[in-house]
Amino acid sequence: MKKLINSPENVVLESITGLGAAFSELIKIHTNPNYITRADAPVENKVALVSGGGSGHEPMHGGFVGRGMLDAACPGAVFTSPTPDQMFEATKAVNGGKGVLHIVKNYTGDVLNFEMAADLARAEGIEVEAVVIDDDVAVKDSLWTAGRRGVGTTVLAEKICGAAAEAGHSLKEVAALCQNVNKNGRSMGMALTSCIVPHAGKPTFDLPEDEMEIGIGIHGEPGRTRTKLKSADEITEVLLQPIVEDLPYKSGDEVLLFVNSMGGTPLLELFVVYGKAHEILTRQGIKVTRSLVGPYITSLEMAGASITLLKLDDEMTKLWDAPVLTPALRWGV
Amino acid sequence: MKKLINSPENVVLESITGLGAAFSELIKIHTNPNYITRADAPVENKVALVSGGGSGHEPMHGGFVGRGMLDAACPGAVFTSPTPDQMFEATKAVNGGKGVLHIVKNYTGDVLNFEMAADLARAEGIEVEAVVIDDDVAVKDSLWTAGRRGVGTTVLAEKICGAAAEAGHSLKEVAALCQNVNKNGRSMGMALTSCIVPHAGKPTFDLPEDEMEIGIGIHGEPGRTRTKLKSADEITEVLLQPIVEDLPYKSGDEVLLFVNSMGGTPLLELFVVYGKAHEILTRQGIKVTRSLVGPYITSLEMAGASITLLKLDDEMTKLWDAPVLTPALRWGV
Repeated sequence: MKKLINSPENVVLESITGLGAAFSELIKIHTNPNYITRADAPVENKVALVSGGGSGHEPMHGGFVGRGMLDAACPGAVFTSPTPDQMFEATKAVNGGKGVLHIVKNYTGDVLNFEMAADLARAEGIEVEAVVIDDDVAVKDSLWTAGRRGVGTTVLAEKICGAAAEAGHSLKEVAALCQNVNKNGRSMGMALTSCIVPHAGKPTFDLPEDEMEIGIGIHGEPGRTRTKLKSADEITEVLLQPIVEDLPYKSGDEVLLFVNSMGGTPLLELFVVYGKAHEILTRQGIKVTRSLVGPYITSLEMAGASITLLKLDDEMTKLWDAPVLTPALRWGV
Repeated sequence: MKKLINSPENVVLESITGLGAAFSELIKIHTNPNYITRADAPVENKVALVSGGGSGHEPMHGGFVGRGMLDAACPGAVFTSPTPDQMFEATKAVNGGKGVLHIVKNYTGDVLNFEMAADLARAEGIEVEAVVIDDDVAVKDSLWTAGRRGVGTTVLAEKICGAAAEAGHSLKEVAALCQNVNKNGRSMGMALTSCIVPHAGKPTFDLPEDEMEIGIGIHGEPGRTRTKLKSADEITEVLLQPIVEDLPYKSGDEVLLFVNSMGGTPLLELFVVYGKAHEILTRQGIKVTRSLVGPYITSLEMAGASITLLKLDDEMTKLWDAPVLTPALRWGV
């Protein structure tokens, strides 16, 4: 296993410590239990957003903490749900009196633990709503998940709902918006290679040198199918078609096109996929009005990519464009 | 070879086409010869900055084109210098009447071709200055380079000099500033794995499963030494010490600490290195006042990292903080 780490036991704590040192003006690192908050948390009279999940998907979620996005993120061990006490402490730390929204990716452990944390917080008089993101069209059920998995739409929901919270929307409004983003977002991913979880020390799965996995999850969960390697154009078609058909996205729709690297796929390749996806959508009359391209929801060093489409309305577009100031996403400030 | 490409021949053109589609409000793609300009080029009465080099180092340089940074970038084939006609056409396209600065990484092909392009441009009455970046402390001479190689400081020089040009500085001033940034910047990198150039179809070099290469270049050029794998803390020490001693950086200095992924190293690991580097510098009384962490000057999917230090003065700090609006770096706007 070739990794820039000191030990599997310490990698998450050391990594968030480094993140905190690099962005001390934006975020604050809390340990034992581990969570990351905005440096100015709690923000009085603003709905607070808390997310979290296993580590290994960086910059998600710690890189999305800051003004206009998340108030807190809870990093679990690599590919392992954070614990309810992390979520509970984070919820208390960022509660500004207007309630807290939990944005939860649909993995069984995450969902259960966020539910427990919400109960604990409510018992202390904090108003909590939770929205579960389940946008992955690849498979119905999967390892670790009942129903669809939560993937790329999570990033978009955190940005858009963070902007709504910043603009003063109520907890009910921000939660309804988050549901709406989830309802209009669809994703699918693929892998060229596996990745190595530090604790495991060996690849999560085996993938022969001439094969790829279509519909993979962000923890290497099996997808729809294994096939021989195909060209970037063909892979883009294979990912995009089920996404477009699922909502469905139709001619005249305005969409945000998010092309994501699983980690090991460089930008040189990612923009080939983006260019083809943009061309296919344009040909179908689906108008790409906003874009996000890069490694934002990753699987360690896995080579591969995912595509997410989000059907935009005017409100979502405006909230997407609103200022954001986090380690990983920043504009307008 | 597992890559999201259609063919080695088309990958660069398809990739910059995708980049252009994703960021059409910021940049414009020109083909035959290939170069990327600001969407609003030429900007009248502003010094224009042109850089370029082999592809495979994304987001450098195409991702750094935009307001407050580069006016144009010339992407060569993967790990291959762009041609003089690319540089010449780019220079003409962005010349706003106040002269053009070529920022050149010190590789023999790049230096020669930029010199030829500068001569061609001068023959047409365009004032051109060139600054060669040679900040890599690893080796004196190397494959492809006489003298030190140009690496991480290039990114910082492009940002800082771009801000100076935007602020109305003259060509002589911007060139002198670029020299000054180069004089105060030092870098060193290491690799855990090789990478595969699409045309070659096989790894650039072999690195056994239990070894790493210290002092590697961004094209996989041999470095200082091959050793057994070490911990992230040890590797950080090994990279940072020669950098600090070379300038030398001293107690009381203010520095920008840039920790760069070679491509395949995920943020989870990169922030472990950043945290350790920050700790070492702080212990030595060297004050980290600005930071950059992420994959900015990469070697395709190579796993590894590089560290760059830049000694800051007040002017450089102010120019670093100035607004920038490019695909890969944006803040303040």
